[in-house]
Amino acid sequence: MSEFGLHDLPLRDDLRGRTPYGAPQLDVPVALNTNENPYPPSERLVAALAEAVSAAARGLNRYPDRDALRLREGLARYLGHGLDASRVWAANGSNEVLQQILQAFGGPGRTAMGFEPSYSMHPVIAEVTGTRWVAERRGGDFSIDPDAAVAAVTEHRPDVVFLTSPNNPTGTALPLETVARIAAAAPGVVVVDEAYAEFRREGTPSALTLLAENPRIIVSRTMSKAFALAGARLGYLAAHPAVIDALQLVRLPYHLSAVTQAVAGVALDFSDELLGGVKQLREERDALVDWLRGHGFRVADSDANFVMFGEFPDRTAVFRGMLERGVLIREVGPPAWLRTTIGTPEEMSAFREALLQVTG
Amino acid sequence: MSEFGLHDLPLRDDLRGRTPYGAPQLDVPVALNTNENPYPPSERLVAALAEAVSAAARGLNRYPDRDALRLREGLARYLGHGLDASRVWAANGSNEVLQQILQAFGGPGRTAMGFEPSYSMHPVIAEVTGTRWVAERRGGDFSIDPDAAVAAVTEHRPDVVFLTSPNNPTGTALPLETVARIAAAAPGVVVVDEAYAEFRREGTPSALTLLAENPRIIVSRTMSKAFALAGARLGYLAAHPAVIDALQLVRLPYHLSAVTQAVAGVALDFSDELLGGVKQLREERDALVDWLRGHGFRVADSDANFVMFGEFPDRTAVFRGMLERGVLIREVGPPAWLRTTIGTPEEMSAFREALLQVTG
Repeated sequence: MSEFGLHDLPLRDDLRGRTPYGAPQLDVPVALNTNENPYPPSERLVAALAEAVSAAARGLNRYPDRDALRLREGLARYLGHGLDASRVWAANGSNEVLQQILQAFGGPGRTAMGFEPSYSMHPVIAEVTGTRWVAERRGGDFSIDPDAAVAAVTEHRPDVVFLTSPNNPTGTALPLETVARIAAAAPGVVVVDEAYAEFRREGTPSALTLLAENPRIIVSRTMSKAFALAGARLGYLAAHPAVIDALQLVRLPYHLSAVTQAVAGVALDFSDELLGGVKQLREERDALVDWLRGHGFRVADSDANFVMFGEFPDRTAVFRGMLERGVLIREVGPPAWLRTTIGTPEEMSAFREALLQVTG
Repeated sequence: MSEFGLHDLPLRDDLRGRTPYGAPQLDVPVALNTNENPYPPSERLVAALAEAVSAAARGLNRYPDRDALRLREGLARYLGHGLDASRVWAANGSNEVLQQILQAFGGPGRTAMGFEPSYSMHPVIAEVTGTRWVAERRGGDFSIDPDAAVAAVTEHRPDVVFLTSPNNPTGTALPLETVARIAAAAPGVVVVDEAYAEFRREGTPSALTLLAENPRIIVSRTMSKAFALAGARLGYLAAHPAVIDALQLVRLPYHLSAVTQAVAGVALDFSDELLGGVKQLREERDALVDWLRGHGFRVADSDANFVMFGEFPDRTAVFRGMLERGVLIREVGPPAWLRTTIGTPEEMSAFREALLQVTG
């Protein structure tokens, strides 16, 4: 008799044979695989966090503010563009924000569309929520052709369109005109996933500027990257108040803990410090792009805190060679490409040295 | 032209006309409406939480342990019964635990069954996950008749059965034989929602004792009630490792923040303190049950930190009368009944005084 296992449970058919999503969590000297920010909080910020958590802790026997109103006010102030709490929503990481969007507007009989290669959690969350996923392709330079995108939207009539800008794993930002044209053609909501927005180069606009003219656009953000708070799990979005009303129907009550609300509030108070690393990371990124191109690699333009580069006939060999040298990058994106997060200057030196050794 | 609103968005048809779940969050002298624990953490615990969060904060730029292994080990130790981390899972409140169960085993074309009146989030989460909900009824004393339950399970063949014990809002615990018989007949998984387990009376067993003999039983718990940590949002479950494998396929990566993991770990270290209030609350509950019965009210037997009592031809009038006197209870459960959380002795005095005034 075989042992009891997953096959004995009523697992959903579409989940059978799947493996959990997630990059390996390895203990390596140089971790450049999950687009984390290399700069930890200062001791001043750590002390402020401890103080805020102490205050919240005294009431931890009570449920948190279910609507996280104060935090949403703070996030609205940070985003600017005339936003207020009624136009901002927050959850445990932008993954939960995106899941709530698909729970409200996707689901059985509904369709979501993305332009790949892109953030691989979009189709994963679509599947978990029972939403049909339509994958359109980006062009050879990882841009989205507006005419082709409008044609695809007109053909498939997706309830939810995902536009990632800057795009993960390619780093590519979208021109606002592309977003606006797709949004005008889309019958449903258009999610502009701007997880990496703060890293974009000068002159690259945010889709926040489109919210006023199109109430079906949703801009999602995160504190994991520019705010250097991946461990705190705080994602958020800006949208028309009617979108927030819809998300309230599917959110789990009290989804955001009092501690998370307190931590994120302090992070907003310290945004000058936390965002201080962004400038350095952008400079380091631009320098890496130049260096890679100077050494004959192909590099996708990047407006993010990572760079996709190639092309390698056997990228796995390069990935493994780097890992043997203590540098963990990511095998993701088109088959011949690799992605590295931008770390500290020291980490990028280690990256460059290892890459030259591995690629001869 | 009418203003842009929810009707202009592709909201799922089954969500139209819905209102968000959740009791009113009112600022009242005596809040007895959400089964919170009235005892806040001690200053010693607050200091330990601040210290643990400080330590976690120094690495907040990095993602948390995606598998929350240390926390799961601690929860397994707390539960006992020979459990280990491979048999325990945690998420942001037991609502998220339950949602993950329905995402893995429910969904379109799947059925979940509950025995009502019971925790109203069960059908809400079923709906959000697209799971068909079959509502069976409890008996007049709010028990579940095992023969009728086995017949219902045999007829409907639910993929997920919810058994709440102690039951919310009635307070009723289930005999283990009832759970075992239903689990033996059920073709899928059986979730025993034990959110209030620590409050059960002497001699009432936990379904944890059934895990070894039936690998399709899942026991869910929470730190919100006995642990007095509703604000920290930590729910968990114990089950066969194959169940945990299934949940890993639907959980959002990094769903539990490093801060939440740290806070819950400290709470386990302080379980003696935190659970110290349980004894007092049980005594206060038993005294309230006696008092209510002595004053001619009907009262459901309670193994929880709340009591359901009645019967009122116009329960809304009683609810409002109590609220006018600063005592917020809950209009929930069968039409003629009301539910009150057990608070401090002072809060229960206020409750008794207000109830006598309101009911003459």
